[in-house]
Amino acid sequence: MVSIPEHGGKVCDHLHRAVELIGRRWTGAILASLLAGATRFSEIRDSIPGISDRLVAERLKELEEQGIVERQVTPSRPPQVAYQLTPKGQALQPVLDSITNWAHDWE
Amino acid sequence: MVSIPEHGGKVCDHLHRAVELIGRRWTGAILASLLAGATRFSEIRDSIPGISDRLVAERLKELEEQGIVERQVTPSRPPQVAYQLTPKGQALQPVLDSITNWAHDWE
Repeated sequence: MVSIPEHGGKVCDHLHRAVELIGRRWTGAILASLLAGATRFSEIRDSIPGISDRLVAERLKELEEQGIVERQVTPSRPPQVAYQLTPKGQALQPVLDSITNWAHDWE
Repeated sequence: MVSIPEHGGKVCDHLHRAVELIGRRWTGAILASLLAGATRFSEIRDSIPGISDRLVAERLKELEEQGIVERQVTPSRPPQVAYQLTPKGQALQPVLDSITNWAHDWE
């Protein structure tokens, strides 16, 4: 039996959920785009070659539901929509950094 | 346009592939199990509640194909099979650590 301290020998459930949230198709790329400073829907989409509008919208919605992204609407004409990382989302910077380091060393 | 230095404003393709590799369903949990010292198929499976034999086998095969896991067969009777992380796989430790930290702080 593998011993993983504090989790009774089981792979931590928090880790499991977090890794699958971040690793969901395109989510990592969208997070990287937001961490790099994108705020507009079109900026996010244009920074990720090959992604569709539908997928950007779906993933942003999921990230909003997880409290990682905040959607702000400015009531101008036309209304302006901006996306921003919450503190929970900004806290993903070291995760994306460590994955980027690994990818550049090994991929 | 978002400016991501060195990648012409595009989310780095390496990052994109790496995050989806690690985030593939159950792969994070299997990596965590191997990093915690599991070597036998049954140890890996038993450390991840709810995973099936078929999924453990599939994910290990994918990780082998990516050069992250090495499968070693000892020609005893019965033959003994052990799984080990390659240096590329061991280099994922900081990635899993940073995801674990984030998950414990925010989930």
